[in-house]
Amino acid sequence: MVAPLKVGIAGLGTVGAEVIRLIESQGRVLAARCGRGARVVAVTARSKSKKRAVDVCGFEWAKTPLELATHPGIDCFVELMGGAGDPALSAVEAALNAGKSVVTANKALLAKHGLRLARAAEKHGCALNFEAAVGAAIPVVKTLREGLAGTSISRVYGILNGTCNYILTRMEQEGLSFAECLKDAQRLGYAEADPSFDVDGHDTAQKLALLASLAFGTKVAQSAVYVEGISSITPEDLRAAADLGYRVKLLGVAVRTTKGIEQRVHPTMVPKSSSIAQVMGVTNAVTIDGEGIPPITLVGPGAGGAATASAVVADIADVARGIRAKPFGRPVAQLRDTKKAPMERHEGGYYIRLLARDFPGTAAAIATRLAEQNISIESIVQRHANGAAVARAGKASPVPVILVTYATNEDAVRRALQAVQHDKVISGRPQVIRIEKN
Amino acid sequence: MVAPLKVGIAGLGTVGAEVIRLIESQGRVLAARCGRGARVVAVTARSKSKKRAVDVCGFEWAKTPLELATHPGIDCFVELMGGAGDPALSAVEAALNAGKSVVTANKALLAKHGLRLARAAEKHGCALNFEAAVGAAIPVVKTLREGLAGTSISRVYGILNGTCNYILTRMEQEGLSFAECLKDAQRLGYAEADPSFDVDGHDTAQKLALLASLAFGTKVAQSAVYVEGISSITPEDLRAAADLGYRVKLLGVAVRTTKGIEQRVHPTMVPKSSSIAQVMGVTNAVTIDGEGIPPITLVGPGAGGAATASAVVADIADVARGIRAKPFGRPVAQLRDTKKAPMERHEGGYYIRLLARDFPGTAAAIATRLAEQNISIESIVQRHANGAAVARAGKASPVPVILVTYATNEDAVRRALQAVQHDKVISGRPQVIRIEKN
Repeated sequence: MVAPLKVGIAGLGTVGAEVIRLIESQGRVLAARCGRGARVVAVTARSKSKKRAVDVCGFEWAKTPLELATHPGIDCFVELMGGAGDPALSAVEAALNAGKSVVTANKALLAKHGLRLARAAEKHGCALNFEAAVGAAIPVVKTLREGLAGTSISRVYGILNGTCNYILTRMEQEGLSFAECLKDAQRLGYAEADPSFDVDGHDTAQKLALLASLAFGTKVAQSAVYVEGISSITPEDLRAAADLGYRVKLLGVAVRTTKGIEQRVHPTMVPKSSSIAQVMGVTNAVTIDGEGIPPITLVGPGAGGAATASAVVADIADVARGIRAKPFGRPVAQLRDTKKAPMERHEGGYYIRLLARDFPGTAAAIATRLAEQNISIESIVQRHANGAAVARAGKASPVPVILVTYATNEDAVRRALQAVQHDKVISGRPQVIRIEKN
Repeated sequence: MVAPLKVGIAGLGTVGAEVIRLIESQGRVLAARCGRGARVVAVTARSKSKKRAVDVCGFEWAKTPLELATHPGIDCFVELMGGAGDPALSAVEAALNAGKSVVTANKALLAKHGLRLARAAEKHGCALNFEAAVGAAIPVVKTLREGLAGTSISRVYGILNGTCNYILTRMEQEGLSFAECLKDAQRLGYAEADPSFDVDGHDTAQKLALLASLAFGTKVAQSAVYVEGISSITPEDLRAAADLGYRVKLLGVAVRTTKGIEQRVHPTMVPKSSSIAQVMGVTNAVTIDGEGIPPITLVGPGAGGAATASAVVADIADVARGIRAKPFGRPVAQLRDTKKAPMERHEGGYYIRLLARDFPGTAAAIATRLAEQNISIESIVQRHANGAAVARAGKASPVPVILVTYATNEDAVRRALQAVQHDKVISGRPQVIRIEKN
């Protein structure tokens, strides 16, 4: 039998500790599966003395990530420190340049420097595996890289951030506000003290940039992703969505259009009957539309120590097995520039919630502005605050009007709503949520 | 660049034609992904002259599958003929013995001869890939073989037969009988003229046997699978399930228990909130429970020419890439004998529907028989035929009694129901549906 793969691990938090435990407890199975075992030989982390879930005394302690990355005694460098810059970047790059394969869970690093790192991996014939960076244990990277190798993909979209889905689920199920649910998520450890990275959609955008590259053979480009978060969503929106047969999810969507690859992250209305609509709480899910075949949806834990470690160890197993897939599925030289489809040309249905000033002719005024932009209305509901739909509201206070349009384009919607605002027939800003059909 | 992989295809039905089309249309992408292209060089089928969806004049025509399998001009033999015996068996075996990798969609062949074929593949260093044999384009074989390589799996279960799920979905949604829905399924081409292979659970059992081997490192053993079909399920069962918060699905379940690996196929009540319960129509889904991580569910088309071809081409791509994973994840010598957990020792909750003869004391008599076997009752409902629950039914006609038990074992349930039948307090045979918790 071939000598075991010698692994060095940088970063010994929950995930790192669990990776060490799995490599030990699953040692025999891993060896059987891969034709060779894997053995942790050296580790490093910020603090050597910190109390950890796993005993690391038996491993050599490298002084710095960089030292570990280039350690002559290791074959595979596992980067679990996180962060788009150093020390992760320089360590990963050094490892690849030293001919060592790299396994990482670092989406930020890959979204920013993925191309540069993939080039280094390719040059030195190393693996650069990152299953854990998107959807933790959900095998979405492998599925896009290998499982659908012969299928032309038209769209990939999903719930890639558990924090947002947890908040939206609670808001929908309990009628609570965004702020209340966020507070709960923070208390339960599902959201950071500074939640903006999650709730403003940036975490989803990084993951989406990786999936888009794998799906479409384009260069990873986080800057090509249009991003909107969920903080403006209200319980009223979720109730209205339910009435209309939809649920609201923060989706990352990458889709091939005639204008290029559209990459966008925003609150999205999805049909209640779709697989993605069923995904509740912190669970993640990704749907892949391949040419001529019904959608494939992968659902599972998108975070957590054990789930992330599971993906990291699977990636290590692939290195042990000798699999050296191109990091983004194709040689870097063949990855195309991402032609960013401009968001104002996005086409689809729209949900629009307006607070109409309540005098005769308001609905007509709104409908006229939409008609001017050739926007067809699928449904329009005017409601009293108590939720009862009315044909014509009383005069007292502003009344919510909920519109659902047929497929139109973003530009037309923006123009129509600008005109509506200019007409002064509504109070405040209109709420707009894009609809994604399955 | 390495010379393209030379492919021979036996079987030119819908799937074969689509595989040829994909290899041609996706040629450049495949070459980029795999580092080498793939090229169909020779084909065979029962009839050479038959009109097909794709022109095969440009390929060499092999006289027999066996001749194609051992053709010196091919590297990879793609078997799409089906059937557990010859010509598929001898052709696949000959190809492997000639050092050619094999890709097949043939679940029957693998469920019966998988071990023998895996041994041949291993001996000659060839791949034996069969992603298309289970869940078509859903990458469940790859996920179990590679994606969860480092995770100890405790259970794998799923909806593996689209015909049955279509029938159960229509029965539930429209209140139709099994026979009516089967007829519709046949008319729509979802079910064969002789539907027994699907509706009696044998198709699911073959697929489950493959998944169980991949998940647990045991020898494929279709004979170890307990099988029950869906023909006894009635609309009343589906209504009662809905009232209780469940749906009925034909599941294949393989689970590690203290008594061995339980492999079973039967109608199953699953909580409505579970991912698997959301899967409707001909769609398939597989849920994998790994140690310490929340379930991972893969959902998608389980059949169809394009979906099956997608998986076949992905398998061909893995061959081209040089991946030679062990067919069942581990070397054949390390696959353990399947210790069949006896069904009478199965533990779980049960749904029981009885037609009680309507005289005072019937419910008490039934409850006593269950209590004698230490079976605790979670709920009991006695209904008039019109569906209204009643505390005590009138005397006229038999009244359905629906019981849900807490976790107990199969043996106790069988004994209790025998005693109930012996007491002559019920009409006909009791309906029993096992409950699977997520």
